Amino acid sequence: MKIIIVGATGTIGKPVTEFLEKDHEIIKAGSKSGDLQLDITSPDSISKFFEQAGTFDALISATGGGHFGPITTMTDTDFRTGIDSKLMGQINLVLIGQHFVNPNGSFTLTSGILSSDPIQAGVNLSTVNGALDSFVKAAAIALEKGVRINAVSPDVVEGSPQYFSFFPGNIPVTMAQVTQAYVKSVMGRQTGQVYKVHGS
Amino acid sequence: MKIIIVGATGTIGKPVTEFLEKDHEIIKAGSKSGDLQLDITSPDSISKFFEQAGTFDALISATGGGHFGPITTMTDTDFRTGIDSKLMGQINLVLIGQHFVNPNGSFTLTSGILSSDPIQAGVNLSTVNGALDSFVKAAAIALEKGVRINAVSPDVVEGSPQYFSFFPGNIPVTMAQVTQAYVKSVMGRQTGQVYKVHGS
Repeated sequence: MKIIIVGATGTIGKPVTEFLEKDHEIIKAGSKSGDLQLDITSPDSISKFFEQAGTFDALISATGGGHFGPITTMTDTDFRTGIDSKLMGQINLVLIGQHFVNPNGSFTLTSGILSSDPIQAGVNLSTVNGALDSFVKAAAIALEKGVRINAVSPDVVEGSPQYFSFFPGNIPVTMAQVTQAYVKSVMGRQTGQVYKVHGS
Repeated sequence: MKIIIVGATGTIGKPVTEFLEKDHEIIKAGSKSGDLQLDITSPDSISKFFEQAGTFDALISATGGGHFGPITTMTDTDFRTGIDSKLMGQINLVLIGQHFVNPNGSFTLTSGILSSDPIQAGVNLSTVNGALDSFVKAAAIALEKGVRINAVSPDVVEGSPQYFSFFPGNIPVTMAQVTQAYVKSVMGRQTGQVYKVHGS
């Protein structure tokens, strides 16, 4: 299987890549590293990326940022950080990538626990993650040629100890647990699912 | 209570306004009609609106559009329709309005059933509604001075027969049912809730 992994060198992308590259052809993509570079906030950059990458069987996106901070001083510009990156970046990978994916291929996006389990500074990412959870449910019944789409919704992960203090009481999940959710999405036949890898 | 209703002359806003104006001071707001006009896609317009409207006890938003159409031809520009209007329009009413709302006041936004019950042409609005459902959960724990926030998530409503054919099998809900969800949000003390007014 030819699998594109966007964010292949990131905290989540790296173990997912290491697991899947044993048996599959992997195209590693990133903003600065990997086999091919792209800027997910630019539809033009995404289009050029797919023209270079060519057709594929599965795309995993483990990328995209957002705004952390108090709502009391939050502005439209702050909020657009997550809208333009983690939300529209991943959605545009699907809107544009649907024209390059092989029949019965798949997309696997990354949302996160904040959609249902909010933290003080995470209003922007809660919103973005909730949007992604609903996007995959809706896109699953709208995509053609048997193309599937799921999201993985990780809790705070063991590989990111710098975030632990923002998630009081959340039990970090292992990279192996998170990796298997992506494997399930790519190798299984389910669609429209949000795979919750939550520690508590 | 001084209540701002954005979209006061719309299908949902009108019966909500008629119910609440019996006992409360209502500021009717809309893009073209009402006591005060605003363009919810413009943060500048929203700021000017609140400067005119002054402080308030509750804001109800029953406004905002999105893109209907097949995913197969959907573009970033199509998708931004709902992002800029129904999503960021309503979020900016909160981000800016938090500086004008009285202590213990409230915001009530409008999402919709498509977040969890998708239809073929509704990928954009599913995403926007899912974002709004998660936004109110997160904002509820982040807003200060006892300010509350909820969303009402209506099914297709009796007042919009032009949409019935897009929602096969959905049982339209009455305007009275929908109105009471907004009343519950404004007059009750709950926060971070998504009031689902679903017919099935």
